[in-house]
Amino acid sequence: MRGLKLVVAYDGAGFHGWQRQPGRRTVQGVMEDHLGAVLKESVTVTGAGRTDAGCHARGQVASLGTASQLPVAALAPLLNRLLPGDVRVREVTETEPGFDARRSAIARRYAYRLLWAEDLLLSRIAWHPQRPFDAEGLTRATAPLEGRHDFAAFQSTGSTPAVSVCNVTRAAWRPSEGGVQLDIVADHFLYHMVRSIVGTALVFQAAADPGARMAECLASRDRGRAGPTAPAHGLCLEEVFYPTGASR
Amino acid sequence: MRGLKLVVAYDGAGFHGWQRQPGRRTVQGVMEDHLGAVLKESVTVTGAGRTDAGCHARGQVASLGTASQLPVAALAPLLNRLLPGDVRVREVTETEPGFDARRSAIARRYAYRLLWAEDLLLSRIAWHPQRPFDAEGLTRATAPLEGRHDFAAFQSTGSTPAVSVCNVTRAAWRPSEGGVQLDIVADHFLYHMVRSIVGTALVFQAAADPGARMAECLASRDRGRAGPTAPAHGLCLEEVFYPTGASR
Repeated sequence: MRGLKLVVAYDGAGFHGWQRQPGRRTVQGVMEDHLGAVLKESVTVTGAGRTDAGCHARGQVASLGTASQLPVAALAPLLNRLLPGDVRVREVTETEPGFDARRSAIARRYAYRLLWAEDLLLSRIAWHPQRPFDAEGLTRATAPLEGRHDFAAFQSTGSTPAVSVCNVTRAAWRPSEGGVQLDIVADHFLYHMVRSIVGTALVFQAAADPGARMAECLASRDRGRAGPTAPAHGLCLEEVFYPTGASR
Repeated sequence: MRGLKLVVAYDGAGFHGWQRQPGRRTVQGVMEDHLGAVLKESVTVTGAGRTDAGCHARGQVASLGTASQLPVAALAPLLNRLLPGDVRVREVTETEPGFDARRSAIARRYAYRLLWAEDLLLSRIAWHPQRPFDAEGLTRATAPLEGRHDFAAFQSTGSTPAVSVCNVTRAAWRPSEGGVQLDIVADHFLYHMVRSIVGTALVFQAAADPGARMAECLASRDRGRAGPTAPAHGLCLEEVFYPTGASR
Protein backbone atom coordinates (compact mmCIF):
# COMPACT_ATOMS: atom_id res chain seq x y z
CA MET A 1 0.00 0.00 0.00
CA ARG A 2 1.42 3.35 -1.05
CA GLY A 3 0.26 6.72 0.22
CA LEU A 4 -0.39 9.50 -2.29
CA LYS A 5 -0.88 13.23 -1.80
CA LEU A 6 -2.70 15.23 -4.47
CA VAL A 7 -2.84 19.02 -4.70
CA VAL A 8 -6.13 19.91 -6.32
CA ALA A 9 -7.66 23.11 -7.77
CA TYR A 10 -11.33 23.55 -8.54
CA ASP A 11 -13.92 26.08 -9.53
CA GLY A 12 -16.56 25.47 -6.88
CA ALA A 13 -19.50 26.89 -8.86
CA GLY A 14 -20.50 23.52 -10.28
CA PHE A 15 -19.99 21.45 -7.12
CA HIS A 16 -22.01 20.83 -3.97
CA GLY A 17 -18.80 21.29 -2.01
CA TRP A 18 -15.96 18.88 -1.36
CA GLN A 19 -17.60 16.09 0.58
CA ARG A 20 -19.17 13.11 -1.19
CA GLN A 21 -22.97 13.11 -1.00
CA PRO A 22 -25.32 10.66 -2.69
CA GLY A 23 -26.87 12.00 -5.90
CA ARG A 24 -24.91 15.25 -5.85
CA ARG A 25 -21.87 16.36 -7.81
CA THR A 26 -19.06 16.92 -5.29
CA VAL A 27 -15.31 17.29 -5.73
CA GLN A 28 -14.56 14.26 -3.56
CA GLY A 29 -17.04 12.20 -5.58
CA VAL A 30 -15.59 13.26 -8.92
CA MET A 31 -12.02 12.67 -7.67
CA GLU A 32 -12.83 9.22 -6.28
CA ASP A 33 -14.62 8.14 -9.44
CA HIS A 34 -11.75 9.18 -11.71
CA LEU A 35 -9.01 7.93 -9.39
CA GLY A 36 -10.85 4.61 -9.27
CA ALA A 37 -10.86 4.43 -13.07
CA VAL A 38 -7.16 5.26 -13.34
CA LEU A 39 -5.92 3.10 -10.44
CA LYS A 40 -8.37 0.29 -11.28
CA GLU A 41 -9.49 -0.09 -7.67
CA SER A 42 -12.07 1.41 -5.36
CA VAL A 43 -10.63 4.59 -3.84
CA THR A 44 -11.47 6.75 -0.83
CA VAL A 45 -9.77 10.15 -0.58
CA THR A 46 -9.44 12.39 2.46
CA GLY A 47 -9.52 16.16 1.89
CA ALA A 48 -7.63 18.64 4.04
CA GLY A 49 -10.58 21.03 4.08
CA ARG A 50 -14.26 20.25 3.57
CA THR A 51 -15.02 23.29 1.44
CA ASP A 52 -18.69 24.32 1.19
CA ALA A 53 -20.83 24.30 -1.92
CA GLY A 54 -19.61 27.11 -4.19
CA CYS A 55 -16.22 27.60 -2.49
CA HIS A 56 -13.15 27.36 -4.68
CA ALA A 57 -9.73 25.84 -4.15
CA ARG A 58 -6.31 26.45 -5.60
CA GLY A 59 -4.53 24.23 -3.10
CA GLN A 60 -6.87 21.64 -1.63
CA VAL A 61 -4.93 18.54 -0.58
CA ALA A 62 -6.29 15.00 -0.83
CA SER A 63 -4.65 11.83 0.42
CA LEU A 64 -5.31 8.19 -0.36
CA GLY A 65 -3.80 4.74 -0.06
CA THR A 66 -3.44 2.58 -3.14
CA ALA A 67 -2.10 -0.86 -4.13
CA SER A 68 -1.50 0.41 -7.68
CA GLN A 69 2.10 0.54 -8.86
CA LEU A 70 1.33 3.28 -11.42
CA PRO A 71 4.28 5.73 -11.43
CA VAL A 72 3.51 8.92 -9.51
CA ALA A 73 4.65 11.12 -12.41
CA ALA A 74 2.05 9.54 -14.72
CA LEU A 75 -0.90 10.14 -12.44
CA ALA A 76 -1.55 13.89 -12.80
CA PRO A 77 -1.48 13.88 -16.63
CA LEU A 78 -3.70 10.76 -16.74
CA LEU A 79 -6.22 12.22 -14.31
CA ASN A 80 -6.29 15.63 -15.97
CA ARG A 81 -7.09 14.02 -19.31
CA LEU A 82 -10.18 12.44 -17.74
CA LEU A 83 -11.32 15.03 -15.20
CA PRO A 84 -13.93 17.67 -16.10
CA GLY A 85 -12.62 21.18 -16.83
CA ASP A 86 -13.57 22.61 -13.43
CA VAL A 87 -11.17 20.43 -11.43
CA ARG A 88 -7.43 19.99 -11.96
CA VAL A 89 -4.75 17.93 -10.22
CA ARG A 90 -1.76 20.24 -9.84
CA GLU A 91 0.68 17.80 -8.28
CA VAL A 92 0.93 14.20 -7.06
CA THR A 93 3.59 13.04 -4.60
CA GLU A 94 4.21 9.88 -2.59
CA THR A 95 3.78 10.28 1.14
CA GLU A 96 5.25 8.88 4.33
CA PRO A 97 3.19 6.02 5.80
CA GLY A 98 0.35 7.39 7.91
CA PHE A 99 0.05 10.69 6.04
CA ASP A 100 -3.53 11.99 6.20
CA ALA A 101 -4.39 15.19 4.32
CA ARG A 102 -6.67 16.33 7.13
CA ARG A 103 -5.02 15.10 10.33
CA SER A 104 -1.43 15.72 9.21
CA ALA A 105 -2.11 19.35 8.18
CA ILE A 106 -0.61 21.95 10.49
CA ALA A 107 -2.19 25.02 8.87
CA ARG A 108 -4.50 26.16 6.08
CA ARG A 109 -4.63 29.41 4.18
CA TYR A 110 -7.91 30.76 2.83
CA ALA A 111 -8.53 33.91 0.81
CA TYR A 112 -11.80 35.84 0.66
CA ARG A 113 -12.15 38.43 -2.11
CA LEU A 114 -14.35 41.51 -2.03
CA LEU A 115 -15.02 43.78 -5.02
CA TRP A 116 -15.54 47.54 -4.85
CA ALA A 117 -18.02 47.32 -7.73
CA GLU A 118 -19.83 44.69 -9.78
CA ASP A 119 -17.47 42.99 -12.22
CA LEU A 120 -18.95 40.25 -14.34
CA LEU A 121 -15.54 38.77 -15.14
CA LEU A 122 -14.61 38.37 -11.47
CA SER A 123 -18.05 37.58 -10.11
CA ARG A 124 -17.36 33.83 -10.03
CA ILE A 125 -14.51 34.24 -7.56
CA ALA A 126 -15.20 37.46 -5.66
CA TRP A 127 -18.14 39.09 -3.91
CA HIS A 128 -19.46 42.61 -4.32
CA PRO A 129 -21.34 43.48 -1.12
CA GLN A 130 -24.18 46.01 -1.32
CA ARG A 131 -22.82 47.72 1.79
CA PRO A 132 -19.95 50.14 1.07
CA PHE A 133 -16.67 49.34 2.81
CA ASP A 134 -13.11 50.54 3.09
CA ALA A 135 -9.85 48.71 3.51
CA GLU A 136 -8.80 50.55 6.64
CA GLY A 137 -12.01 49.68 8.48
CA LEU A 138 -11.69 46.04 7.46
CA THR A 139 -8.09 45.93 8.62
CA ARG A 140 -9.00 47.38 11.99
CA ALA A 141 -11.94 44.98 12.28
CA THR A 142 -9.94 41.81 11.75
CA ALA A 143 -6.79 42.82 13.68
CA PRO A 144 -8.02 41.31 16.99
CA LEU A 145 -8.44 37.89 15.37
CA GLU A 146 -4.75 37.05 15.16
CA GLY A 147 -3.62 34.75 17.95
CA ARG A 148 -5.09 31.79 19.81
CA HIS A 149 -8.76 32.43 20.55
CA ASP A 150 -12.06 30.64 20.92
CA PHE A 151 -13.83 31.34 17.62
CA ALA A 152 -17.24 29.95 18.68
CA ALA A 153 -18.84 33.29 17.70
CA PHE A 154 -17.91 32.54 14.08
CA GLN A 155 -19.02 28.92 13.91
CA SER A 156 -22.29 28.29 12.11
CA THR A 157 -24.94 26.45 14.02
CA GLY A 158 -25.81 23.06 12.62
CA SER A 159 -22.15 22.17 12.34
CA THR A 160 -20.52 19.23 14.08
CA PRO A 161 -19.25 20.50 17.42
CA ALA A 162 -15.50 20.94 17.15
CA VAL A 163 -12.71 22.32 19.26
CA SER A 164 -13.50 25.98 18.72
CA VAL A 165 -10.11 27.29 19.82
CA CYS A 166 -8.08 28.10 16.72
CA ASN A 167 -4.63 29.59 16.34
CA VAL A 168 -4.91 32.29 13.68
CA THR A 169 -1.38 33.17 12.59
CA ARG A 170 -2.46 35.68 9.96
CA ALA A 171 -5.60 37.70 9.24
CA ALA A 172 -4.70 40.55 6.91
CA TRP A 173 -6.32 42.41 4.01
CA ARG A 174 -4.42 43.26 0.88
CA PRO A 175 -5.37 44.81 -2.46
CA SER A 176 -6.53 42.34 -5.08
CA GLU A 177 -7.92 43.01 -8.55
CA GLY A 178 -10.94 45.29 -8.27
CA GLY A 179 -11.05 45.14 -4.47
CA VAL A 180 -9.38 43.65 -1.43
CA GLN A 181 -8.87 40.15 -0.10
CA LEU A 182 -8.56 38.70 3.36
CA ASP A 183 -5.66 36.27 3.71
CA ILE A 184 -6.24 34.13 6.75
CA VAL A 185 -4.03 31.34 8.06
CA ALA A 186 -4.91 29.10 11.02
CA ASP A 187 -4.17 25.64 12.33
CA HIS A 188 -7.79 24.73 11.65
CA PHE A 189 -11.06 26.45 10.75
CA LEU A 190 -14.60 26.03 12.05
CA TYR A 191 -17.66 25.54 9.84
CA HIS A 192 -18.29 28.81 7.91
CA MET A 193 -15.64 30.55 10.01
CA VAL A 194 -13.98 32.64 7.26
CA ARG A 195 -17.32 33.60 5.71
CA SER A 196 -18.69 34.61 9.13
CA ILE A 197 -15.58 36.66 9.85
CA VAL A 198 -15.91 38.49 6.50
CA GLY A 199 -19.62 39.18 6.99
CA THR A 200 -18.92 40.46 10.51
CA ALA A 201 -15.95 42.60 9.43
CA LEU A 202 -18.20 44.26 6.83
CA VAL A 203 -20.65 45.23 9.58
CA PHE A 204 -18.01 46.41 12.05
CA GLN A 205 -15.69 48.22 9.60
CA ALA A 206 -18.05 51.21 9.58
CA ALA A 207 -18.08 51.46 13.41
CA ALA A 208 -16.16 54.09 15.36
CA ASP A 209 -13.83 51.40 16.69
CA PRO A 210 -14.06 48.30 14.48
CA GLY A 211 -11.38 46.46 16.47
CA ALA A 212 -13.21 46.91 19.78
CA ARG A 213 -16.44 45.63 18.23
CA MET A 214 -14.68 42.57 16.83
CA ALA A 215 -12.84 41.86 20.09
CA GLU A 216 -16.11 42.05 22.01
CA CYS A 217 -17.85 39.75 19.51
CA LEU A 218 -14.98 37.24 19.68
CA ALA A 219 -14.98 37.25 23.49
CA SER A 220 -18.75 36.70 23.62
CA ARG A 221 -18.45 33.33 21.83
CA ASP A 222 -22.01 34.09 20.73
CA ARG A 223 -22.88 33.54 17.05
CA GLY A 224 -25.77 35.97 17.53
CA ARG A 225 -23.30 38.84 18.01
CA ALA A 226 -21.55 38.21 14.71
CA GLY A 227 -22.67 39.46 11.29
CA PRO A 228 -24.18 37.51 8.42
CA THR A 229 -22.24 34.78 6.63
CA ALA A 230 -20.66 36.09 3.42
CA PRO A 231 -21.50 34.08 0.28
CA ALA A 232 -19.42 31.03 -0.63
CA HIS A 233 -18.18 32.14 -4.05
CA GLY A 234 -15.73 34.72 -2.63
CA LEU A 235 -13.85 32.05 -0.67
CA CYS A 236 -10.89 30.00 -1.86
CA LEU A 237 -8.77 27.38 -0.06
CA GLU A 238 -5.37 28.56 -1.24
CA GLU A 239 -2.87 26.31 0.52
CA VAL A 240 -2.47 23.58 3.13
CA PHE A 241 0.71 23.25 5.17
CA TYR A 242 2.34 20.04 6.44
CA PRO A 243 5.42 19.33 8.55
CA THR A 244 8.53 19.06 6.40
CA GLY A 245 9.09 15.49 5.28
CA ALA A 246 5.44 14.41 5.39
CA SER A 247 5.56 13.90 1.65
CA ARG A 248 8.45 13.37 -0.70
CA MET B 1 -36.78 58.64 -32.17
CA ARG B 2 -34.40 58.71 -29.21
CA GLY B 3 -30.81 57.53 -29.30
CA LEU B 4 -29.56 55.27 -26.49
CA LYS B 5 -26.05 54.29 -25.48
CA LEU B 6 -25.54 51.10 -23.44
CA VAL B 7 -22.34 50.08 -21.70
CA VAL B 8 -22.25 46.29 -21.66
CA ALA B 9 -20.11 43.66 -19.91
CA TYR B 10 -20.01 40.01 -20.90
CA ASP B 11 -18.19 36.77 -20.30
CA GLY B 12 -17.37 35.74 -23.85
CA ALA B 13 -17.02 32.00 -23.13
CA GLY B 14 -20.64 31.25 -23.99
CA PHE B 15 -20.93 33.49 -27.05
CA HIS B 16 -19.91 33.22 -30.69
CA GLY B 17 -18.64 36.78 -30.44
CA TRP B 18 -20.51 40.07 -30.61
CA GLN B 19 -21.98 40.05 -34.09
CA ARG B 20 -25.39 38.54 -34.80
CA GLN B 21 -25.20 35.28 -36.77
CA PRO B 22 -28.10 33.03 -37.69
CA GLY B 23 -28.43 30.00 -35.41
CA ARG B 24 -25.61 31.05 -33.08
CA ARG B 25 -25.67 32.63 -29.65
CA THR B 26 -24.05 36.06 -29.97
CA VAL B 27 -24.04 39.08 -27.67
CA GLN B 28 -25.66 41.31 -30.26
CA GLY B 29 -28.37 38.71 -30.83
CA VAL B 30 -29.09 38.31 -27.11
CA MET B 31 -29.10 42.09 -26.61
CA GLU B 32 -31.42 42.74 -29.54
CA ASP B 33 -33.85 40.03 -28.48
CA HIS B 34 -34.10 41.33 -24.91
CA LEU B 35 -34.16 45.01 -25.90
CA GLY B 36 -36.97 44.16 -28.32
CA ALA B 37 -38.95 42.53 -25.52
CA VAL B 38 -38.45 45.49 -23.16
CA LEU B 39 -38.97 48.28 -25.72
CA LYS B 40 -41.76 46.35 -27.47
CA GLU B 41 -40.34 47.02 -30.92
CA SER B 42 -37.84 45.43 -33.27
CA VAL B 43 -34.37 46.69 -32.36
CA THR B 44 -30.99 46.80 -34.11
CA VAL B 45 -27.95 47.67 -32.01
CA THR B 46 -24.53 48.80 -33.20
CA GLY B 47 -21.50 47.67 -31.17
CA ALA B 48 -18.35 49.75 -30.84
CA GLY B 49 -16.15 46.66 -31.24
CA ARG B 50 -16.99 43.38 -32.97
CA THR B 51 -15.33 41.16 -30.39
CA ASP B 52 -14.43 37.62 -31.50
CA ALA B 53 -15.90 34.40 -30.17
CA GLY B 54 -14.56 33.88 -26.66
CA CYS B 55 -13.41 37.49 -26.09
CA HIS B 56 -14.76 39.28 -23.06
CA ALA B 57 -15.92 42.83 -22.47
CA ARG B 58 -16.17 45.06 -19.46
CA GLY B 59 -16.97 48.18 -21.46
CA GLN B 60 -18.46 47.31 -24.85
CA VAL B 61 -20.72 50.12 -26.04
CA ALA B 62 -23.90 49.57 -28.03
CA SER B 63 -26.12 52.23 -29.60
CA LEU B 64 -29.66 52.08 -30.88
CA GLY B 65 -32.58 54.27 -31.88
CA THR B 66 -35.98 53.72 -30.30
CA ALA B 67 -39.47 55.20 -30.41
CA SER B 68 -40.11 53.92 -26.88
CA GLN B 69 -40.64 56.52 -24.16
CA LEU B 70 -39.47 54.17 -21.38
CA PRO B 71 -37.40 56.23 -18.89
CA VAL B 72 -33.66 55.69 -19.34
CA ALA B 73 -33.19 54.98 -15.63
CA ALA B 74 -35.58 52.02 -15.81
CA LEU B 75 -33.89 50.31 -18.70
CA ALA B 76 -30.77 48.78 -17.13
CA PRO B 77 -32.63 47.19 -14.18
CA LEU B 78 -35.34 45.85 -16.51
CA LEU B 79 -32.84 44.40 -18.95
CA ASN B 80 -30.64 42.90 -16.25
CA ARG B 81 -33.63 41.09 -14.78
CA LEU B 82 -34.18 39.39 -18.16
CA LEU B 83 -30.66 38.95 -19.52
CA PRO B 84 -28.74 35.71 -18.94
CA GLY B 85 -26.05 35.78 -16.23
CA ASP B 86 -23.14 36.13 -18.66
CA VAL B 87 -24.14 39.56 -19.97
CA ARG B 88 -24.87 42.70 -17.96
CA VAL B 89 -25.90 46.23 -18.86
CA ARG B 90 -23.79 48.54 -16.72
CA GLU B 91 -25.22 51.87 -17.81
CA VAL B 92 -27.79 53.38 -20.16
CA THR B 93 -27.70 57.01 -21.27
CA GLU B 94 -29.50 59.09 -23.88
CA THR B 95 -27.34 60.27 -26.77
CA GLU B 96 -27.09 63.21 -29.13
CA PRO B 97 -28.82 62.63 -32.48
CA GLY B 98 -26.54 60.76 -34.85
CA PHE B 99 -24.54 59.01 -32.12
CA ASP B 100 -23.24 55.67 -33.38
CA ALA B 101 -21.30 53.43 -30.99
CA ARG B 102 -18.89 52.39 -33.72
CA ARG B 103 -18.47 55.48 -35.89
CA SER B 104 -18.55 58.01 -33.05
CA ALA B 105 -15.86 56.20 -31.02
CA ILE B 106 -12.51 57.98 -30.93
CA ALA B 107 -10.58 55.23 -29.12
CA ARG B 108 -10.86 51.77 -27.61
CA ARG B 109 -8.91 50.13 -24.81
CA TYR B 110 -8.29 46.39 -24.79
CA ALA B 111 -6.47 44.30 -22.18
CA TYR B 112 -4.79 40.97 -22.80
CA ARG B 113 -3.84 38.92 -19.74
CA LEU B 114 -1.05 36.36 -19.51
CA LEU B 115 -0.49 33.99 -16.59
CA TRP B 116 2.90 32.83 -15.32
CA ALA B 117 1.38 29.44 -14.43
CA GLU B 118 -1.85 27.53 -14.88
CA ASP B 119 -4.59 28.90 -12.62
CA LEU B 120 -7.98 27.25 -12.92
CA LEU B 121 -9.74 30.22 -11.30
CA LEU B 122 -8.35 32.71 -13.81
CA SER B 123 -8.30 30.45 -16.86
CA ARG B 124 -11.56 31.90 -18.21
CA ILE B 125 -10.08 35.38 -18.53
CA ALA B 126 -6.32 34.91 -18.93
CA TRP B 127 -3.98 32.73 -20.97
CA HIS B 128 -1.06 30.65 -19.75
CA PRO B 129 1.30 30.22 -22.72
CA GLN B 130 3.49 27.12 -22.83
CA ARG B 131 6.45 29.27 -23.82
CA PRO B 132 8.15 30.97 -20.84
CA PHE B 133 8.19 34.78 -20.95
CA ASP B 134 9.29 37.76 -18.91
CA ALA B 135 7.80 41.19 -18.45
CA GLU B 136 10.90 43.07 -19.53
CA GLY B 137 11.11 41.23 -22.85
CA LEU B 138 7.41 41.84 -23.51
CA THR B 139 7.79 45.53 -22.69
CA ARG B 140 10.72 45.87 -25.07
CA ALA B 141 8.82 43.94 -27.75
CA THR B 142 5.73 46.15 -27.75
CA ALA B 143 7.46 49.53 -27.28
CA PRO B 144 7.77 50.20 -31.04
CA LEU B 145 4.01 49.85 -31.49
CA GLU B 146 3.07 53.18 -29.92
CA GLY B 147 2.37 55.86 -32.49
CA ARG B 148 0.69 55.99 -35.90
CA HIS B 149 1.73 52.96 -37.95
CA ASP B 150 0.43 50.63 -40.61
CA PHE B 151 -0.51 47.48 -38.64
CA ALA B 152 -1.12 45.26 -41.70
CA ALA B 153 1.37 42.72 -40.27
CA PHE B 154 -1.06 42.14 -37.37
CA GLN B 155 -4.27 41.85 -39.37
CA SER B 156 -5.59 38.34 -39.84
CA THR B 157 -6.17 37.22 -43.37
CA GLY B 158 -9.78 36.57 -44.22
CA SER B 159 -10.82 39.84 -42.62
CA THR B 160 -12.60 42.64 -44.46
CA PRO B 161 -9.91 44.96 -45.85
CA ALA B 162 -9.79 48.03 -43.63
CA VAL B 163 -7.65 51.10 -43.27
CA SER B 164 -4.68 49.40 -41.65
CA VAL B 165 -3.09 52.57 -40.28
CA CYS B 166 -3.92 52.83 -36.58
CA ASN B 167 -2.90 55.35 -33.99
CA VAL B 168 -1.81 53.39 -30.92
CA THR B 169 -1.66 55.83 -28.01
CA ARG B 170 -0.70 53.22 -25.44
CA ALA B 171 0.82 49.72 -25.54
CA ALA B 172 2.16 48.89 -22.09
CA TRP B 173 2.44 45.83 -19.87
CA ARG B 174 1.62 45.95 -16.19
CA PRO B 175 1.39 43.33 -13.43
CA SER B 176 -2.00 41.70 -13.06
CA GLU B 177 -3.05 38.84 -10.80
CA GLY B 178 -0.85 35.83 -11.49
CA GLY B 179 0.85 37.41 -14.48
CA VAL B 180 0.98 40.52 -16.64
CA GLN B 181 -1.45 42.28 -18.92
CA LEU B 182 -1.06 44.37 -22.05
CA ASP B 183 -3.11 47.57 -21.97
CA ILE B 184 -3.50 48.84 -25.50
CA VAL B 185 -5.37 51.93 -26.64
CA ALA B 186 -5.88 52.90 -30.28
CA ASP B 187 -8.30 54.87 -32.44
CA HIS B 188 -9.34 51.59 -34.06
CA PHE B 189 -8.16 47.98 -34.21
CA LEU B 190 -7.82 45.53 -37.08
CA TYR B 191 -9.23 42.01 -37.09
CA HIS B 192 -7.28 39.92 -34.51
CA MET B 193 -4.81 42.79 -34.05
CA VAL B 194 -4.36 42.59 -30.27
CA ARG B 195 -4.17 38.79 -30.27
CA SER B 196 -1.59 38.86 -33.10
CA ILE B 197 0.46 41.46 -31.25
CA VAL B 198 0.46 39.34 -28.08
CA GLY B 199 1.40 36.15 -29.93
CA THR B 200 4.19 38.03 -31.72
CA ALA B 201 5.46 39.70 -28.55
CA LEU B 202 5.72 36.25 -26.93
CA VAL B 203 7.97 35.08 -29.78
CA PHE B 204 10.12 38.23 -29.89
CA GLN B 205 10.46 38.80 -26.11
CA ALA B 206 13.12 36.09 -25.94
CA ALA B 207 15.20 37.66 -28.75
CA ALA B 208 18.40 39.63 -28.17
CA ASP B 209 16.62 42.83 -29.24
CA PRO B 210 12.85 42.34 -29.00
CA GLY B 211 12.12 45.93 -30.02
CA ALA B 212 14.15 45.67 -33.22
CA ARG B 213 12.37 42.44 -34.16
CA MET B 214 8.96 44.02 -33.60
CA ALA B 215 9.87 47.21 -35.49
CA GLU B 216 11.05 45.12 -38.43
CA CYS B 217 7.88 43.01 -38.38
CA LEU B 218 5.69 46.12 -38.20
CA ALA B 219 7.53 47.78 -41.10
CA SER B 220 7.21 44.64 -43.24
CA ARG B 221 3.38 44.85 -43.22
CA ASP B 222 3.62 41.07 -43.75
CA ARG B 223 1.39 38.84 -41.61
CA GLY B 224 3.85 36.00 -42.30
CA ARG B 225 6.51 37.77 -40.24
CA ALA B 226 4.30 38.01 -37.15
CA GLY B 227 3.80 35.28 -34.54
CA PRO B 228 0.74 33.13 -33.94
CA THR B 229 -2.56 34.64 -32.83
CA ALA B 230 -3.01 34.36 -29.04
CA PRO B 231 -6.27 32.69 -27.93
CA ALA B 232 -9.44 34.76 -27.56
CA HIS B 233 -10.14 34.13 -23.88
CA GLY B 234 -7.25 36.34 -22.67
CA LEU B 235 -8.70 39.39 -24.40
CA CYS B 236 -11.15 41.92 -22.98
CA LEU B 237 -12.63 45.10 -24.45
CA GLU B 238 -12.25 47.33 -21.41
CA GLU B 239 -13.43 50.75 -22.52
CA VAL B 240 -14.59 52.82 -25.49
CA PHE B 241 -13.98 56.55 -25.67
CA TYR B 242 -16.21 59.22 -27.25
CA PRO B 243 -15.90 62.96 -27.70
CA THR B 244 -17.26 64.82 -24.68
CA GLY B 245 -20.93 65.59 -25.12
CA ALA B 246 -21.71 62.66 -27.43
CA SER B 247 -23.98 61.25 -24.75
CA ARG B 248 -25.71 62.93 -21.85
